[in-house]
Amino acid sequence: LLNHAGVVGRLINEFSMLPGVGPKTAQRIAFYLLNAPEEVAHRLSDAVREARDNIKYCSVCSNLTDIDPCTICGNDKRSKAVICIVQEPRDVIAMEKSRSFKGLYHVLHGAISPMDGIGPEKLKIKELLGRLHKEKVEELILATNPNVEGDATALYLARLTKPLGIKVTRIAHGLPVGAYLEYADGVTLTKALEGRQEM
Amino acid sequence: LLNHAGVVGRLINEFSMLPGVGPKTAQRIAFYLLNAPEEVAHRLSDAVREARDNIKYCSVCSNLTDIDPCTICGNDKRSKAVICIVQEPRDVIAMEKSRSFKGLYHVLHGAISPMDGIGPEKLKIKELLGRLHKEKVEELILATNPNVEGDATALYLARLTKPLGIKVTRIAHGLPVGAYLEYADGVTLTKALEGRQEM
Repeated sequence: LLNHAGVVGRLINEFSMLPGVGPKTAQRIAFYLLNAPEEVAHRLSDAVREARDNIKYCSVCSNLTDIDPCTICGNDKRSKAVICIVQEPRDVIAMEKSRSFKGLYHVLHGAISPMDGIGPEKLKIKELLGRLHKEKVEELILATNPNVEGDATALYLARLTKPLGIKVTRIAHGLPVGAYLEYADGVTLTKALEGRQEM
Repeated sequence: LLNHAGVVGRLINEFSMLPGVGPKTAQRIAFYLLNAPEEVAHRLSDAVREARDNIKYCSVCSNLTDIDPCTICGNDKRSKAVICIVQEPRDVIAMEKSRSFKGLYHVLHGAISPMDGIGPEKLKIKELLGRLHKEKVEELILATNPNVEGDATALYLARLTKPLGIKVTRIAHGLPVGAYLEYADGVTLTKALEGRQEM
């Protein structure tokens, strides 16, 4: 690619392979790391290798973790009676940032999508049923994405788990906080109206 | 920062420290690396560590390199009679991408800027004079940036090297290729007029 000193070119190339990193940013990162104190580069290098080598699925919730059970499942202060079901590990991060949920999670690692050949058997649903049989769970919060695949997955899980006598809820659809009514799409407005609550 | 499995959170943090990488991109990169084949993460990790540990200045041109002299200075097919003087290693990459220059480079690692306390003695000018005394150089192309600091540096170098009997040239100022006259700033237009050439 570049007629440039070997290791520098290789470093730029490796960074430009990453999602969301264009060639200019890759170059900026590379020169930043070459000029930064040695420990900055070492810390990044070690973080990448350690994370990749030690990452596994939590045997309880299937979230990505290096210790098993993960720090959330292993936290005695969290309620084991409520499980929030999400599609991806990044959804757990988003929920945790909101600090609004103190129960446990279950990560499906995807959503049902017949178009992409993803059926229920490809998701961590067997693991979820195992949990429901072992632990006393009072409520399942279905927090899959509010789109076709996420809704289909939520519907599938609701049908599967309600017969077990567990309360099953779906996160609310509606207008995002700070949004403008005039810019909201029709489907969201419809959902917001349907989900209206008395004040 | 995040109540998330240790190594994942650390990985996201390390990436969000990099220039041009926001928290969302850092998260996206982290999960990409955790899901990618092991060798993708290892290659990035190794590239960062190897580059940082082996990088040094080329003893000839002061560009960043892991082998000395660098691959450009050590390339027998390149003309040693012309030296293109640039401010930063990234400028060498930009020039090389244009494939329009087949001589050697000299990297100053900055430009004269009294406001920032950067005088000529902080740049690789001593090293340049050493080259000019050792090698038979016919032309110096001053390719510092077309701004106050770059122009001042070019002027300083021209005064310093012309007495040695070397041809000293400055890269042309003008309209970028593909630009629109109506959006060009006045100074650039003036330079473009001054530098007009017969067709």
